[in-house]
Amino acid sequence: MRGSRNEGEENLLRRIRAALGRRSSPNLRERPASTFLTSGMGDDAALARPTSGNELILTCDWFLEGTHFLREKHPADSIGWKCLARAVSDVAAMGGVPRCFLLSLALPRELTGPWMNKFLGGLRRAARAFRCELAGGDTTKRREILINVTVVGEIAEGKAVLRSGARPGDIVYVSGRLGEAEFGLQQLRTNKELTGKRGAILKKHLYPQPRLALGQWLAEKRLATAMMDLSDGLSSDLRRLCHASNVGGSVKADCLPMLRHLAGSGLNSNHGLQLALHGGDDYELLFTVKKKDRARIPRAYKGVPLTAIGEITKGKGLLLTLRDGRSSPLKPGGWDPFTN
Amino acid sequence: MRGSRNEGEENLLRRIRAALGRRSSPNLRERPASTFLTSGMGDDAALARPTSGNELILTCDWFLEGTHFLREKHPADSIGWKCLARAVSDVAAMGGVPRCFLLSLALPRELTGPWMNKFLGGLRRAARAFRCELAGGDTTKRREILINVTVVGEIAEGKAVLRSGARPGDIVYVSGRLGEAEFGLQQLRTNKELTGKRGAILKKHLYPQPRLALGQWLAEKRLATAMMDLSDGLSSDLRRLCHASNVGGSVKADCLPMLRHLAGSGLNSNHGLQLALHGGDDYELLFTVKKKDRARIPRAYKGVPLTAIGEITKGKGLLLTLRDGRSSPLKPGGWDPFTN
Repeated sequence: MRGSRNEGEENLLRRIRAALGRRSSPNLRERPASTFLTSGMGDDAALARPTSGNELILTCDWFLEGTHFLREKHPADSIGWKCLARAVSDVAAMGGVPRCFLLSLALPRELTGPWMNKFLGGLRRAARAFRCELAGGDTTKRREILINVTVVGEIAEGKAVLRSGARPGDIVYVSGRLGEAEFGLQQLRTNKELTGKRGAILKKHLYPQPRLALGQWLAEKRLATAMMDLSDGLSSDLRRLCHASNVGGSVKADCLPMLRHLAGSGLNSNHGLQLALHGGDDYELLFTVKKKDRARIPRAYKGVPLTAIGEITKGKGLLLTLRDGRSSPLKPGGWDPFTN
Repeated sequence: MRGSRNEGEENLLRRIRAALGRRSSPNLRERPASTFLTSGMGDDAALARPTSGNELILTCDWFLEGTHFLREKHPADSIGWKCLARAVSDVAAMGGVPRCFLLSLALPRELTGPWMNKFLGGLRRAARAFRCELAGGDTTKRREILINVTVVGEIAEGKAVLRSGARPGDIVYVSGRLGEAEFGLQQLRTNKELTGKRGAILKKHLYPQPRLALGQWLAEKRLATAMMDLSDGLSSDLRRLCHASNVGGSVKADCLPMLRHLAGSGLNSNHGLQLALHGGDDYELLFTVKKKDRARIPRAYKGVPLTAIGEITKGKGLLLTLRDGRSSPLKPGGWDPFTN
């Protein structure tokens, strides 16, 4: 476990810093332009100065080879993007603004060359897109690629939207289209070459877009009574929101924004429904709105469709209503690592 | 990778919360006694309210089976304690106060019973000892035990001690005794039953004590010009401190607080010196003090010995001076995962 004579880890940290960090001046206490981080990588810990009157948002996420991605299927660039996007999505789900992140990376020595450069490229693009700066991290050698990302965000005090605020009668909304990411994964696993629309569908799986602007708008305007991001699938995640709010919910299958047909993909409408109900990794927002505020929710916010899919109820269970009017309990069918 | 029908992960999270978290009231916005966390586990992210006038300290650490500990050698209780102690030690090294932590845990299903209870027991003891509250985390199933801990701490603005402030002429100090943790690991690996003093020596390896009070005192009194914790071994870590400060350093072998003799252990003085120079995992503090402040550094602070071991120099290299007066370059010989 111990006893080496060299500085391999420091070289790696230098490269990560060069790709993502700000330029550091080792002899001076750094006071860079960004107002959040006051001292970045290269010390025992990072220092940051929170904005007065804000609360901090703290979240972390695993992203593990074999569990969350496959080395031979997922481009390194996508792994870099997605490891940050997933954690940033939790900040979006509170209505917050991401500020900085910590990257814990373990990987085999043979991936420290081109693979890591592409990984850092995707991560850099994500960090810029989400305005989330690298604050520090930890690296080590490992047979498999292990990633853990912690994101620190901020939000005005008292404005964060929790999962627990949904009340009977509230309308249930989702952003975007559900099941696309899961379908993208299924396509990725077929080993077929994917072109045109079938190639485009991969984008949602490989490069998810956390709904930051939408989340911030809903929180700022106090439109969402409860909110979370859809990471494990609607059936599992809506259940969590209802459980936290001590309510039930009903979903209309016909209202779900889903994939309906894709030439040559073998997709049929039942498949589309199953993907929308149980598919993971969409990183769309699931939120509830008081009935009286319904008119204030547009059909799309900054190009992202917003769809009313059901209602919060008094009972504790979840119901799914089909087109023919029949209802049946909606069981959690999303992803759970411990029963997989 | 996906497609289960059950709530295994939530049960696990519930148990972690029960063992470590505050009681949650799912229907109310939590405003508990602790002034830092304002909403803990059970949402997309945790919310915290930083203390006005403070800077945040952010750090994360891997703790991985096979890399940092061995499942069959290290008690689960020690793994729980140590995963938090290591990350808290980075906060101590800045002079800060730990506030809360995020726990990312991946483990095999068969360890979710008694093993995990013991793990959580050690973690709870550490969380209480360091006054560092669980804020949230992520769990998943994995063949091997993977742990990542992020700690958030605080310190009065401008008081954090960086690695970069050492100047030629400053005295180099260490806390505690060096090499004990590495020796403990060597003993643990012998498979012999360890009793008496040889058993006691394991404690430093299994249950390290981050030097929080010492770090806070040095920062508060502005006594340390530079500081870091000793995690990879003095020869590697002093090199990092000197590099960040753009200086060199010389260490007197004779001054090093080290293990000298331990009946029946086969330990001799050269072995003790090698352990003190290159042994990892001590989590003692390495710090530098202006010559004029030397008299203000006691021989021990709250029971922890403080020892002057050398001096900061103008040149860039590290020198080791032996008892006979001969000096030789001190090469980094501490732990580095990428050359191991």
